Amino acid sequence: MKVTLLAGGTGGAKLAHGFQQVLAHGELTVIVNVADDTELHGLRVSPDVDTVLYTLAGLANAETGWGVSGDTWTALHMLGRYGEPTWFRVGDADLATHVRREHLLAGGASLTDATQSMAEALGVPSHILPATDDPVRTILHTDAGELEFQDYFVRLRQEPEVHSVRFDGIDGARPTDEVRIALDSAELIVIAPSNPIVSVEPILALPGMRQAIRSAGQRGTRRLAISPIIAGAALKGPADRMLASLGHESSALGVARMYAGLIDAFVIDEADAELAPSVEQLGMEAVVLRTVMRRDADRAALALALLPA
Amino acid sequence: MKVTLLAGGTGGAKLAHGFQQVLAHGELTVIVNVADDTELHGLRVSPDVDTVLYTLAGLANAETGWGVSGDTWTALHMLGRYGEPTWFRVGDADLATHVRREHLLAGGASLTDATQSMAEALGVPSHILPATDDPVRTILHTDAGELEFQDYFVRLRQEPEVHSVRFDGIDGARPTDEVRIALDSAELIVIAPSNPIVSVEPILALPGMRQAIRSAGQRGTRRLAISPIIAGAALKGPADRMLASLGHESSALGVARMYAGLIDAFVIDEADAELAPSVEQLGMEAVVLRTVMRRDADRAALALALLPA
Repeated sequence: MKVTLLAGGTGGAKLAHGFQQVLAHGELTVIVNVADDTELHGLRVSPDVDTVLYTLAGLANAETGWGVSGDTWTALHMLGRYGEPTWFRVGDADLATHVRREHLLAGGASLTDATQSMAEALGVPSHILPATDDPVRTILHTDAGELEFQDYFVRLRQEPEVHSVRFDGIDGARPTDEVRIALDSAELIVIAPSNPIVSVEPILALPGMRQAIRSAGQRGTRRLAISPIIAGAALKGPADRMLASLGHESSALGVARMYAGLIDAFVIDEADAELAPSVEQLGMEAVVLRTVMRRDADRAALALALLPA
Repeated sequence: MKVTLLAGGTGGAKLAHGFQQVLAHGELTVIVNVADDTELHGLRVSPDVDTVLYTLAGLANAETGWGVSGDTWTALHMLGRYGEPTWFRVGDADLATHVRREHLLAGGASLTDATQSMAEALGVPSHILPATDDPVRTILHTDAGELEFQDYFVRLRQEPEVHSVRFDGIDGARPTDEVRIALDSAELIVIAPSNPIVSVEPILALPGMRQAIRSAGQRGTRRLAISPIIAGAALKGPADRMLASLGHESSALGVARMYAGLIDAFVIDEADAELAPSVEQLGMEAVVLRTVMRRDADRAALALALLPA
């Protein structure tokens, strides 16, 4: 069963890990948001790609939801002494990732090539694909002014209220050939329980992406999405507040509306079972499941429940 | 008393630290060899500059003679997993240095600018000057073939016999303006007890460098050198074997001959006191001192003994 998952960071990485546990070697492809990418210390940093990479390699720090388990902070301390910014907490192993990526990019590799090389080196049995190799950057208009994503997300701890979002460079960006093939050859396409506005939308907004998903649906490929909102709240991150401040309903139903016309089924948590009829009115099947993934087994159980019987 | 020191790594860094202890803030300038520089993990690495930087900042690992005291190895382990070479043991704090330097260089800084910025950030009260901002690379012809310096020095642990040495790029390289000013304004010019062939020579061989030192002598600036060879042996590194295999006498006298015509006085260790008459026959004053620098106080004592009364 070839599964293609569209994902941002933490929630997407967890579900990816669930699928990786229940699928055969190489059957999972994760298309990852790169509009959160930034440059730090002169190095390209791909936070969502890294979270998926570390999670699928069994290296992720489960407590923080980002970075490498057991990482040390020696380089960051020294970088701080040199005057480099330290609000983005790059651990030593994480710095190695950014150094290696930059080395590969400088040698002419695409971000896709570099990611594949690093995933293979870490023994990851799944395919991790940046959604695009072109530069796309999420810019948030907030009550603290216009902010780059990591500035908002990490430095300002998601405190400013977001009034609008744009993706600089999106019109000239293209999904990679690898992404198109992964959508065309998928037997199941899944939109992870990631932030619909800043994790999923910059993937879907790539020119040709929505059409590729619609075409897959016309060929009979099942397409589903999992709500990142449970009982009106995001498990992690600012998705709930962001939905509200951008004029959406801060609920699973609000998310379902954003995906209407693009998916066949929407998965809501048992806590939101009463929303099922409203979801179905949007022209999609409503699936009620336990969607909270606390342990590895929860991830695998959710992935298994998403696979066709 | 403005002192300008020509130096390689360990021995040069120790004497630099001695001078820094006994001179006023800003009076010491260290002109450092950069022909050992290399690129690692896509980052410019300047081993001699770093050893001087760490030593003058009080961060050096006194046990190894290179790297940062108390450094950790998390990034190197991860870089190894990604397939990067690990024979050059870059610690995490050391990696931060290379990342910071590369960031500054990529932003348009010269190596001189980058080094100054980093030394200031670490609170170093002396001036650390790369001998040149132009690319010069030491290439050794050995019985294991032609080797770059770090390949010979670190990877092959200085085991191959060296038959000849060349400095690629030296003819087109120039000492920086800062180096010329440091020589022109010095009241004392000192050649550190560094390897004369691969640490000092690539500084002296820069076009215009020997002439600048001779001109300083003509203006009355005292110029002295300290032997890195004591009782026929190098305290550290391959200088003794290299002198022999390149046809020099592997002794303090052999080193004195290499500096004849360029210096006013040559400092030999008490263990070599009997060589003093032979040194003086080369047309230079012979100065007998305790030159082994085991502790910080030894460094300061030697520096103090080198200053005019």
